Amino acid sequence: MTWSSFSFRLRAIKALHLHYVNRSPVTNVSSVTVNCLLSLSRKYSINPADLPKIMATEKTLPKLFKFVDQNAQSYKDLLKEAVAIPSVSCDPKYREDCVRMVHWARDKLKEIGAKTELKDVGFQTIDGKEIKLPPVLVGTLGNDRNKNTICLYGHLDVQPALKSDGWVSEPFELVERDGKLFGRGSTDDKGPVLGWLHAINAFKGVGEELPVNLKFVFECMEESGSEGLDALLLEKLKPAGFFDDVDYVCISDNYWLGTKKPCITYGLRGISYYFLEVECAKMDLHSGVYGGTVYEAMSDLIYLMDQLVDKEGKILITDIYKSVAPLMENEKKLYTTIDFDTEAYRRSIAAPKLAHNGDKEQILMHRWRYPSLSLHGIEGAAFQPGAKTVIPGKVIGKFSIRLVPNQEPEEVEKLVFDYINKKWAERGSPNKMRISAQSGRAWTENPDHPHYQAAARAVKMIFQTEPDMSREGGSIPVTITLQQASGRNVLLLPMGAGDDMAHSQNEKLNVRNYIEGIKLFAAYMFEVSKLPK
Amino acid sequence: MTWSSFSFRLRAIKALHLHYVNRSPVTNVSSVTVNCLLSLSRKYSINPADLPKIMATEKTLPKLFKFVDQNAQSYKDLLKEAVAIPSVSCDPKYREDCVRMVHWARDKLKEIGAKTELKDVGFQTIDGKEIKLPPVLVGTLGNDRNKNTICLYGHLDVQPALKSDGWVSEPFELVERDGKLFGRGSTDDKGPVLGWLHAINAFKGVGEELPVNLKFVFECMEESGSEGLDALLLEKLKPAGFFDDVDYVCISDNYWLGTKKPCITYGLRGISYYFLEVECAKMDLHSGVYGGTVYEAMSDLIYLMDQLVDKEGKILITDIYKSVAPLMENEKKLYTTIDFDTEAYRRSIAAPKLAHNGDKEQILMHRWRYPSLSLHGIEGAAFQPGAKTVIPGKVIGKFSIRLVPNQEPEEVEKLVFDYINKKWAERGSPNKMRISAQSGRAWTENPDHPHYQAAARAVKMIFQTEPDMSREGGSIPVTITLQQASGRNVLLLPMGAGDDMAHSQNEKLNVRNYIEGIKLFAAYMFEVSKLPK
Repeated sequence: MTWSSFSFRLRAIKALHLHYVNRSPVTNVSSVTVNCLLSLSRKYSINPADLPKIMATEKTLPKLFKFVDQNAQSYKDLLKEAVAIPSVSCDPKYREDCVRMVHWARDKLKEIGAKTELKDVGFQTIDGKEIKLPPVLVGTLGNDRNKNTICLYGHLDVQPALKSDGWVSEPFELVERDGKLFGRGSTDDKGPVLGWLHAINAFKGVGEELPVNLKFVFECMEESGSEGLDALLLEKLKPAGFFDDVDYVCISDNYWLGTKKPCITYGLRGISYYFLEVECAKMDLHSGVYGGTVYEAMSDLIYLMDQLVDKEGKILITDIYKSVAPLMENEKKLYTTIDFDTEAYRRSIAAPKLAHNGDKEQILMHRWRYPSLSLHGIEGAAFQPGAKTVIPGKVIGKFSIRLVPNQEPEEVEKLVFDYINKKWAERGSPNKMRISAQSGRAWTENPDHPHYQAAARAVKMIFQTEPDMSREGGSIPVTITLQQASGRNVLLLPMGAGDDMAHSQNEKLNVRNYIEGIKLFAAYMFEVSKLPK
Repeated sequence: MTWSSFSFRLRAIKALHLHYVNRSPVTNVSSVTVNCLLSLSRKYSINPADLPKIMATEKTLPKLFKFVDQNAQSYKDLLKEAVAIPSVSCDPKYREDCVRMVHWARDKLKEIGAKTELKDVGFQTIDGKEIKLPPVLVGTLGNDRNKNTICLYGHLDVQPALKSDGWVSEPFELVERDGKLFGRGSTDDKGPVLGWLHAINAFKGVGEELPVNLKFVFECMEESGSEGLDALLLEKLKPAGFFDDVDYVCISDNYWLGTKKPCITYGLRGISYYFLEVECAKMDLHSGVYGGTVYEAMSDLIYLMDQLVDKEGKILITDIYKSVAPLMENEKKLYTTIDFDTEAYRRSIAAPKLAHNGDKEQILMHRWRYPSLSLHGIEGAAFQPGAKTVIPGKVIGKFSIRLVPNQEPEEVEKLVFDYINKKWAERGSPNKMRISAQSGRAWTENPDHPHYQAAARAVKMIFQTEPDMSREGGSIPVTITLQQASGRNVLLLPMGAGDDMAHSQNEKLNVRNYIEGIKLFAAYMFEVSKLPK
C-alpha cells in the first residue's frame, strides 16, 4: 500500500476525519478528490507518509478501549491493593511501608516486562537521627530505535491520613461509593501510576505492540520534598546515560481544573516550606505548676506566625512580591477564556466566602501566578481532642510559600529568614529560635509545543473536547529536575478531577477518571509515537 | 492501765517525746515529774486520755514501716501493672482502657476488704457524638462509730503520652532508673492511689486494725475536667448520705514544691480552659491548589491566639486582673520564708531565663496567687514531623487561664468571650468562629486547722522535718466539690517531688517518695485517728 494507491488515499481520508474531526464514520467519500485529501492533510499538519500509522491507531485503539472497559474491576482491585499499603513518607514510622510499596510496584513493572532497578538514595536526618530513604524505582521497557521514548514519572508515597481526621471510611481501604474510589493515594498518585501500567498491559491484552519505548522513575518521597531524588537524577542517572534516548517526559500527578473538563498543565508554582522552631524548656511543662514563671515558646511562635500573612492572604514578608513576573496584557486575557465556575469551587469546599471577592480571573491568577502563604500547623504542641494542659517545651511552626515565576527559592528563603530574624529581635524573647527551609522553583513550559498538541489530540479522542491548557497552584519540584536531566519537553497529563481532595480527608478518584484515564494514557502513547523522532 | 499509774505516765512521757519531738528514745526519765508530763501534754495540745492511742502508734508504726520497706518490690510491681493500662481520658480511643483501669482498681479495693460500687455517670459529647464516661469507683472500708472517717480521692486516668514525644522509654511501661520509676501516671496519680492501698494493707500485714474508717472516690476523668463527677458527688452521693459520717477529706494528687522538702498544700489555682474554633472549609485543602483563594482558618486563629498574652506572660484580656485578691503585707511575708531555689528550678527544665527576672517571691506568687495564661496547641492542624502541605479546614486553638482567689469562673469566661468577640469583629474575617470553656474555681483552706497539724506531724515523723505549708499553681477542681459535698476540711497531701514532670515527657516518681509516701499515708491515718471525732 502506497500513497499513490487511490483506495489507500480513500481510507486515509476516512482515517483523517475519524481521527481528527468527530470520530464518526465518514459515509460519503465518493466525491473526495486528491486535492481535498492533500488540503485536509495540510490542515492537520499531517505528513501523508504518517497515514499508515494513523490507520493502525484506528484499528488498535477502539479494541484497546473495549479491553479497558472489560477489565475495569481488576484495575480497581489493584488500586485497592496499592492503597492498602500506608506509604506515608513524612513519618518515619511508616518507612517500612514505603519500602514495601516500592517493592510492590517493582513486581508490577517486572510483570509487564520492564527491566527494573532499585536505586539507593541514602539517608535523611530527622531530629538528629539518620533514617534510610526508600529506594527509587527505575525501569526501562523497550529499546526500539525507531520508536519515540517517553520517560514517565510518578510517586508511590502519600500524605498522612487518620480516620479520626474526618474520613468517612478507613483512609487506607479503597472503597467505592457513588462512582468514586475513596482512599488515601487513590488520586495522588497511586491511581495515575497504576494507570500507566494498565495502559501498557492493555496493548498486550489486544495483541498489539507498544508504540513507544518507556522509561520509568517512580519514587516514594514526593510528599516529603523528594529527598535524594535530584541527586539520583542529575548526578547518577544523567551521567550514566539514562536520559540519552528520552524524547519526551510525562508526569501524571495533578488534576483537572474543575470536575468536567480535562486539561493539560504547562505551569506549576514552586514551594518554599519553613520549619520555625522555638524552644523554652527541655520538656513539656505542667501549665499549672510552671504557668506564670517561664517565657512560653508557644506565645513566641504564635507571635511570629501572626506576622506572616494578613487576613486577605497578602504576604507581609518585606519585598516578597518584588520578583514576581509582571502581568502582561496578553497573559491577562488568557484567564478570561478559561472555563471555571468559582461558585461551584466555593460550594465544593463550603467556604463562607472566597478571597478576591470570588472574581474568576483573580482567583485563577492567585492559584497560578501569584505566591500564597499558608500556615499548616505546629509540631510539638497539643493536637489531640480534649483539654491537654501542657506548656510545650519545643514547638515547630510549619508554613509554606507557593513560588511563582520569577521568584528564586534562594532569594525567597533569604527574605523570609531576614524578616523572621527582624521580628524575633523585636520580640526580645530569651528563648531559642531557629528557622530552616526546603524549597523548589516554579515551572512553566510552552503549551504550543508538538508534545502538548499530541497530548491534546489524545484528550480530544477520549473526552470529545479540547482540553484547557492550564497551570496549577501546586508544586511538583521533580518537574524541573526532569526537564534539566533530560533536556526534553515535560508535560503534565492529569488523570483526576479538581474535587479529588488530594492531601485532604476523603481523597478520591472518580471511576470514570480512572478508566478513561487509562485509555487516555494509551491514546497519548499512540499520539506521541507519531511525533517525529 | 490508767492515767493515775505512774509507770503508765512514764511510758506516756516516752511516747510523747518519741512521737512529737525527735523520734529518738528518751533515755533518762527518772526525774520527770507529773507536772512536766502535764506541761508536755499541754504543749502538744494532747488530751491525756488520748495517750493510750499514742502508745499504740509507738508500737505499731515502727513495725509497719519495716513491713513497708520489706514489701517495696511488690509495690513497684503493682504500680507497673497500673501504668501498663493506658487510661488516657482525653482521647476516646483509650476509653476502654479507662474502663479497664477502673475495674482493675475495684478488684484491688475488694482485696483489702472494701465494699465497692461502680457509679455510672452517663455520657460526654465529643464532636457531636455521645461517648460513655468511665464509671466512678466508690468504696467504703470500716464503719466503727468510735473512729474518725477519712474520705480519700484519687484519679486513675492519665495525660496522653507517646514515646515519640521524647520519652526515653515506653511511657506505659514502668521502668526504674537511678532510683526513679518512669512511666505515665507513676506520680499523677496512680502511685499515690496505690500508696493508700499499700498503707491499708500494711496495717493488715503487721496484724493491726486500721485506726480510721475510709471512704474512697476514685475517678478516671480527672485529666479531662472530671466530667460527670460533680453531679455524682453533689446530686447522688451527698443526698444518699455517703458523706454523712465523713470527718476529713484527703487528696494526694500534687507535688512537693522542690525535690527535698515535703509540703502540705492548702491552696490551688483554678482553671478556665478554652476551645477556640475557626472554620474556613468543610475539609482540609491542598495548599497548592487552594492557597491564595480562600480565607484561611489558621491565620485567623493564630491572630486571635496572638492577642491573648504578651511575651512576659501578662494576660491581655481586658479587666482580667481586676478581681484578683489584693496582696496584703502579711501574705507577702509568707513567700520570703519558703525554701525555694529558683536557679535549680530553672536548670531542671533548661529554661534560658525565668520570668520576673527569676525573683523568688515573684515566681512563687505567679505560681500560686496570680493568674497565668498558656497556649497549649491547635487541634485539626498539621502536627506530624515533616512537611505536610494542607490548609486546615477547621482548627481548634486550646488555651487556659489558671484562676486565683477571688476570680469567679463565670466572670472570667465572660471577660474572655467578650474580648475574643471584640477581636474577631476587628479582624473582619468571613470565617466561622466559636469559643467554649470548661472552668473550675481556685481553692484555699486554713493551714492552721487541726487536720493540717495532724498531717504535719505525720510528715515530720517520716521526714524528720516540718513541711512547708504551700499552695500550688495547678488545679484540682474536685477539691472544691468535695469541700462542698462533705462540708469538711480538705487537705492535699502530696507524695511526689517537684521535678516529677507530671503531664510531661518522662514523668516519674522517686522510689523514695513512693515508699516513704506509703509510710506517710499510714502515719497520717494514725494522726487523724487521734483527732477529736
